[in-house]
Amino acid sequence: MTRTAEIVAVGSELLTPEKTDTNSLWLTEKLNEAGVEVMLKTIVGDDEARLEETIRDAVKRSDIVITTGGLGPTEDDVTRQVSGRAVGRELVYHEELEAHLRERFRSWGREMPEINKRQAYIIAGAEILPNPNGSAVGMLLELPGKLLVVLPGPPRELMPMYENFVAAKVRALAGDIHVRRRMLRVSGMGESAVDEAIAPIYRAYPHVQTSILFSKSEIEVHLTAKSESEDEAARVLDELAEKIRDTLGLAVFAMNGETLEEVVGRMLSESGETLASAESCTGGLVGMRLTEVPGSSAYFLEGAVTYSNEAKMRTLGVPETTLAEHGAVSAETAEAMASGIRERAGADYGIAVTGIAGPGGGSAEKPVGTVFIGYSDKSQTRSMRFNFPGDRFLIRWRSSQAALDYLRRRMLKAKAV
Amino acid sequence: MTRTAEIVAVGSELLTPEKTDTNSLWLTEKLNEAGVEVMLKTIVGDDEARLEETIRDAVKRSDIVITTGGLGPTEDDVTRQVSGRAVGRELVYHEELEAHLRERFRSWGREMPEINKRQAYIIAGAEILPNPNGSAVGMLLELPGKLLVVLPGPPRELMPMYENFVAAKVRALAGDIHVRRRMLRVSGMGESAVDEAIAPIYRAYPHVQTSILFSKSEIEVHLTAKSESEDEAARVLDELAEKIRDTLGLAVFAMNGETLEEVVGRMLSESGETLASAESCTGGLVGMRLTEVPGSSAYFLEGAVTYSNEAKMRTLGVPETTLAEHGAVSAETAEAMASGIRERAGADYGIAVTGIAGPGGGSAEKPVGTVFIGYSDKSQTRSMRFNFPGDRFLIRWRSSQAALDYLRRRMLKAKAV
Repeated sequence: MTRTAEIVAVGSELLTPEKTDTNSLWLTEKLNEAGVEVMLKTIVGDDEARLEETIRDAVKRSDIVITTGGLGPTEDDVTRQVSGRAVGRELVYHEELEAHLRERFRSWGREMPEINKRQAYIIAGAEILPNPNGSAVGMLLELPGKLLVVLPGPPRELMPMYENFVAAKVRALAGDIHVRRRMLRVSGMGESAVDEAIAPIYRAYPHVQTSILFSKSEIEVHLTAKSESEDEAARVLDELAEKIRDTLGLAVFAMNGETLEEVVGRMLSESGETLASAESCTGGLVGMRLTEVPGSSAYFLEGAVTYSNEAKMRTLGVPETTLAEHGAVSAETAEAMASGIRERAGADYGIAVTGIAGPGGGSAEKPVGTVFIGYSDKSQTRSMRFNFPGDRFLIRWRSSQAALDYLRRRMLKAKAV
Repeated sequence: MTRTAEIVAVGSELLTPEKTDTNSLWLTEKLNEAGVEVMLKTIVGDDEARLEETIRDAVKRSDIVITTGGLGPTEDDVTRQVSGRAVGRELVYHEELEAHLRERFRSWGREMPEINKRQAYIIAGAEILPNPNGSAVGMLLELPGKLLVVLPGPPRELMPMYENFVAAKVRALAGDIHVRRRMLRVSGMGESAVDEAIAPIYRAYPHVQTSILFSKSEIEVHLTAKSESEDEAARVLDELAEKIRDTLGLAVFAMNGETLEEVVGRMLSESGETLASAESCTGGLVGMRLTEVPGSSAYFLEGAVTYSNEAKMRTLGVPETTLAEHGAVSAETAEAMASGIRERAGADYGIAVTGIAGPGGGSAEKPVGTVFIGYSDKSQTRSMRFNFPGDRFLIRWRSSQAALDYLRRRMLKAKAV
């Protein structure tokens, strides 16, 4: 039997247009890993009546209820008393908790404000969950076949508390279910094309939950296997992942959720080769992504952001005639940029981007979204034209993705020879 | 009397670790603008019992209830019948809706699948909200002093539907309340320092809601004024914003939510001056941010990502002795990089970043997070040292912020002379 959970996030700031609850994403992952399904999430402010009704309904409907936030020392922090009321329990004062709090404040060189005394009250019968990273302890109340868990809001307090004191209880309640997750990343194909190609494969694995998500410029294939045997879950997942890769081929660039810049970086590290980049419309985004990987200084030598034609000529040696005859956004310029930066930096590979990110600058022949990617290695220089939909942000992001992916595919081909 | 609202997002995919409801942020902004306060948000899957209880409780407790999603044609799309049930109303078949749907499918060159017939059923007594961007119409049910609004999930269907058919009804229910919002951005100060400095000011404006948010490398000061007079709300907001700027001084870089790259870009556009950048540890992030602004090609001439020492010497003319004596991460190198790129590009301003983003590369003297920003104009070259906390991502982001902010402050000083 699959156990069910609900998550209640408490805090007025989570009901503004600027912020929302994100703790529940992390908690959902942990609960799913234990084989528990999250059925409902609520975000509520410091409204006592609504919070009480929410917790009472959740405990009635679901096996595990986790609240986050609202455990601070101020009047607005109502989760402590309201969660007690929702399950018909008093709050009990714990002298040793107050003493501990006073000592902590003293170790910070301060006296404990009297208001913090409220944090020494605990739901009767609940286990106290220590908080090494803050003043609010958590609470765990075991009810017949159910768990009510009350956690603080800050992620760095909530996460270790869950891992250290809650995870084992959840696992005990959920029973011997093992869940393994895996994420493949796919580039150069659309969401529906991926689904069409792999649906016949994953449908043959009804015990693996497969979800296909589109994110900016790539497709994520999430696989989740549940089994009573840990080995079996891992085996089924590996088998399905391999079959998907065999079907999609080169389009699968990551078998374990790695980013494209990590994959390219690993290929370069392994071969001991080096790279340089030349960018126009992406303005540094390709270099930024490549250098987001720790240790990238071992293979990334230099990047040029040549926004003006003068810079393209001066720094990359793009011939004036190329710019005049074909324009700055052209296959010829992209190739000259790629070979130019490769030679300048003395790198094994050069990659270049030139295009029209908009909103201005488009024409009938080269509308906004027209992008050329240039590639150069010791034996060849090539380019590819793309037409990206979207706004300036998305066109730039997709251009950087196309540049890294084109590099990856050309490197694989060069190595396959 | 302030009207209250609840938002219910429907969809199993919103209960996964990868995705959450974001429609509610946009809806909250719209509701707040009309003077309506959002009291609770629920995210629920295709679980009929939980969804029915959620909608019934929400309608009981709050003046406005908006559901999003779950209006598609499949069995999993349960919002239509469940929301009817929750308010005790039947669904009524609308022949003209089916005819309209059939016609639409025909215009796409397809026959309407029989399953889509379900989208022609509407809660008895509800107003039909047309959907030019999809097949699911919305519904608006007026109950005594209350509104139940049922909207489709995709943002490009939901947003125009709300603007065109819901906003006016919400405003009519909320009464003549005018809400004005304004956001100031502050750089170079911490959250609590900002709060300490401006709390005495904003406390004198109890009718303006002030919230201070920290985001990666800057502080956002959100001001929301509610008034029965539109002019009064705007006047109060302007007055408070001016007082905050007078107190915080140069640290306030935006009075209307502009990004730092937009502010720097506007300064350069207005003066007709040009800029070039040289980056080491940020790897292109400064160039990327500067060129995110449409029209930046008018003032941004060139960027150099000089990751290796060779590139720093070759492209920027940093003397080998400077690198040998002071190291790549030093005030001297940052200054040589800034003046080097300025001269190379023939720009009015040069800005440079060199530092240790980690996780490796730190030392006792220059730990991870040590960053030097270099600045150069026609009359002077200077630098500043920073020690940023955080991981590689945050150190790089904060370095780019420091570079843009140092440029902004130096430009302001140069112009003030």
